[in-house]
Amino acid sequence: MNSKKNRLTKKSENISQWYLDLIDLAQLADYGPAKGTMIIRPYGYAIWENIQKALDEKIKESGAVNAYFPLFIPNSLFSREKEHVKGFAPETAVVTIGGGEKLVDPLIVRPTSEMIMYEAYSRWISSWRDLPMVINQWNNVVRWEKRTYPFLRTSEFLWQEGHGAHATKRENFERVLWAINTYAMICRDFLAIDGIIGQKSESEKFAGADATLPYEMLMPDGKALQGCTSHDLGQNFSKTLSIAFQDKEGKSVFVWQNSWGFTTRTIGALVLVHGDDNGLVLPPKIAPVKIVIIPVLGKKDEEILKYCQKIKDIIKKAKSDFPGNVEIYSDVEKSFGWRINDSEIRGIPIRLEIGTREMQDKTVTISFRLLSMEKKISSLEILPNKLNLLLKTIQQKMLENSKNFLEENTFEVKDYEDFKKIMKTTRGFIKAFWCENVECEKKIKEETKASTRCKPLNVKEKTGNCIYCDQPAKFIWYFAQAY
Amino acid sequence: MNSKKNRLTKKSENISQWYLDLIDLAQLADYGPAKGTMIIRPYGYAIWENIQKALDEKIKESGAVNAYFPLFIPNSLFSREKEHVKGFAPETAVVTIGGGEKLVDPLIVRPTSEMIMYEAYSRWISSWRDLPMVINQWNNVVRWEKRTYPFLRTSEFLWQEGHGAHATKRENFERVLWAINTYAMICRDFLAIDGIIGQKSESEKFAGADATLPYEMLMPDGKALQGCTSHDLGQNFSKTLSIAFQDKEGKSVFVWQNSWGFTTRTIGALVLVHGDDNGLVLPPKIAPVKIVIIPVLGKKDEEILKYCQKIKDIIKKAKSDFPGNVEIYSDVEKSFGWRINDSEIRGIPIRLEIGTREMQDKTVTISFRLLSMEKKISSLEILPNKLNLLLKTIQQKMLENSKNFLEENTFEVKDYEDFKKIMKTTRGFIKAFWCENVECEKKIKEETKASTRCKPLNVKEKTGNCIYCDQPAKFIWYFAQAY
Repeated sequence: MNSKKNRLTKKSENISQWYLDLIDLAQLADYGPAKGTMIIRPYGYAIWENIQKALDEKIKESGAVNAYFPLFIPNSLFSREKEHVKGFAPETAVVTIGGGEKLVDPLIVRPTSEMIMYEAYSRWISSWRDLPMVINQWNNVVRWEKRTYPFLRTSEFLWQEGHGAHATKRENFERVLWAINTYAMICRDFLAIDGIIGQKSESEKFAGADATLPYEMLMPDGKALQGCTSHDLGQNFSKTLSIAFQDKEGKSVFVWQNSWGFTTRTIGALVLVHGDDNGLVLPPKIAPVKIVIIPVLGKKDEEILKYCQKIKDIIKKAKSDFPGNVEIYSDVEKSFGWRINDSEIRGIPIRLEIGTREMQDKTVTISFRLLSMEKKISSLEILPNKLNLLLKTIQQKMLENSKNFLEENTFEVKDYEDFKKIMKTTRGFIKAFWCENVECEKKIKEETKASTRCKPLNVKEKTGNCIYCDQPAKFIWYFAQAY
Repeated sequence: MNSKKNRLTKKSENISQWYLDLIDLAQLADYGPAKGTMIIRPYGYAIWENIQKALDEKIKESGAVNAYFPLFIPNSLFSREKEHVKGFAPETAVVTIGGGEKLVDPLIVRPTSEMIMYEAYSRWISSWRDLPMVINQWNNVVRWEKRTYPFLRTSEFLWQEGHGAHATKRENFERVLWAINTYAMICRDFLAIDGIIGQKSESEKFAGADATLPYEMLMPDGKALQGCTSHDLGQNFSKTLSIAFQDKEGKSVFVWQNSWGFTTRTIGALVLVHGDDNGLVLPPKIAPVKIVIIPVLGKKDEEILKYCQKIKDIIKKAKSDFPGNVEIYSDVEKSFGWRINDSEIRGIPIRLEIGTREMQDKTVTISFRLLSMEKKISSLEILPNKLNLLLKTIQQKMLENSKNFLEENTFEVKDYEDFKKIMKTTRGFIKAFWCENVECEKKIKEETKASTRCKPLNVKEKTGNCIYCDQPAKFIWYFAQAY
């Protein structure tokens, strides 16, 4: 049997091919028969379930509630918010036949649920007592894409979309901030991916929003990836759909709104950021299998398997900050080496290797997926505590690696020649003054493929000159080529 | 403020109107703007989440894994299994435009995922080592409906669909049985709804199946409702899609397949079966809020609220077989009576009423949503244990009620005149011999509106005569009018 690893392109040689190989070899996803669609296979979906669990808990703690709104938005409703429809109409899938009959009002397959949810909000909200109304959904959305890439860009994807309606502009913006900060926490503490919170430029913001706050992550090839965003919708939708409430003084006021989404795209980021030439590297908090036990099979199979089972039971019974699957990988048809390779491809954080020596000495040999950590021998008494500590260390170390990479690949430039040079070579984030004129933004993109990613939050005005036109500029923006 | 209860039609007077009133008043669901679609509101969705949690655990314990397959099935693929497409084509929604362009191969919005999943199975399965492959999805499906009814019949609904592929016919049928037995357990032990497991007649089975096993429940109006089914697909799909494996002897064999689904329809059954003139009655295991604390507000508000909070903390901290929300309902704008009515509408199993007397005596007064149980006074020391026990009792009692109703409304008849009389008056399940000739089945349906529901599993052949044509018949079947 050939080692799977032999079929994995080297990450350093061709990151795109490596990514596609790995998605396939680790069985994260497969292509659907309709163009641009993707099957999320069980191993990929288990990662999504772990992300969902962590995020859903935070959403509920914050006072938001889950619900489900229909997949289909009548075109007549979808078209009511002008900016929104302008942004989304070109990428919609449209149902024109239902139950064998041609529909008078075609149905848009939701690309996002603002219109369908806010139509209901307009009926449900009438008094200040009904506010805030913050409803979240976990669902599937469709945005037609020409060029697709598993997880990173597909015509259908999974996400959660939260939608808040508030009495005041201030309270509304607090929810916008809560969402992006919660996303950043999930990315940092669970996915171990550092990034930057900021605000999008006018041309890059969500169709129908006053402001869009993204979490921008940097991929190993120096390109930025945006996996989650929080939008301040102001009163744009409430004015279009008449979502008004009577305040405590009896005055009728339009609500302030926000929406925020976190998508399966982040699984693509997880693969890109942490993976290496041997396969996935999954952070313990998100890994479907935290620990794999690999027995050396030979003459004493039965005894060894019994010993493996005993160790599995010890681990399962002990308290852990990383509860989850411990797997014994004992397939007799596969060699020891093959099973090690396969566990590496699947990115399992810790591997326990067990042969006759370990059985006799009542120990285990601990190996790590994170290659910078060395093998260790441990006795059974202290094993559960040690594993817990090691998983913590791995989780921290992976975030540190990501922080370091972000820092090392963020460049502050004052000269457009430097800007262009960086975008032609290493890429990465470039911090530079920009005058906020859309023409400069367009020209920079044409000449370097780099778009404005965001303006960091809470920075004070400075005095500087636009990297492109040299006119006065007040803020330093992040630029990057993007996925 | 008017009591919500005043607006609730009496169940005994007009069960259809009562049902619609209650869905609205308890805020379980609302209508979507596209015809036949439904919004599952937060309270209804919380019930679905509790069902999901219980069922998902069982699915995973059984060795099945979760995944996600695309929403869109190309029409060319969808049309390949002849029986399947004949059954589903008339009720599909079809996407004909994507990204502004007319599609050459229109996309069917999945009414069920056999074709899209098995196309992948045909690529993933090649050896006996790949079997069994049992994959489950939680998703949305669309089946175009002319006449819709919240939860019970909507153009889009939520469900889980599990799909097994096995090496042998026998192992395959074991999974078919596992699914329907698991569904029966969820219905009985969680939803407290008794029912009958059986096998569908040829004309009522799933399009493309060899056999369909439903769990048939009886509604208070004497009509049957089917909320979950398990299908033995035999080799019908594997032959059409070439899903074959090499067995241990190296022979190529088509896999045996099954599929099984549990839908949001069951929430409709939950409302119908247990609800009464005062609103919902939810079984503790499924209720989003298990216990509501209602303070009598007056002069000593602050003290009373503090005492309520103390009681809430005591309950939350204690071990319970029914962990979940305990809610203090203290809205000062609403009268004590209004809040009691509202808690009844929402079907919360246990209500703790707390006034100055309870505070002074360090007790609580316990009331029950299940009207046959009387008020009780309890001291704080034994409160958590007592509540746990009471919730258990309620759960059991609700199932007993359902069992009794099923028994009392199942009639064994030997005479077609009796059959017709029952279907014109009380309705219910009728057990009668049927010769299994489709013509008799059709005539009975035309004349009584009753269809065959199922033939119970594991019954031996008997000697009898068809209730309709009087020809020899081997089995007693269940008949009922159905939702």
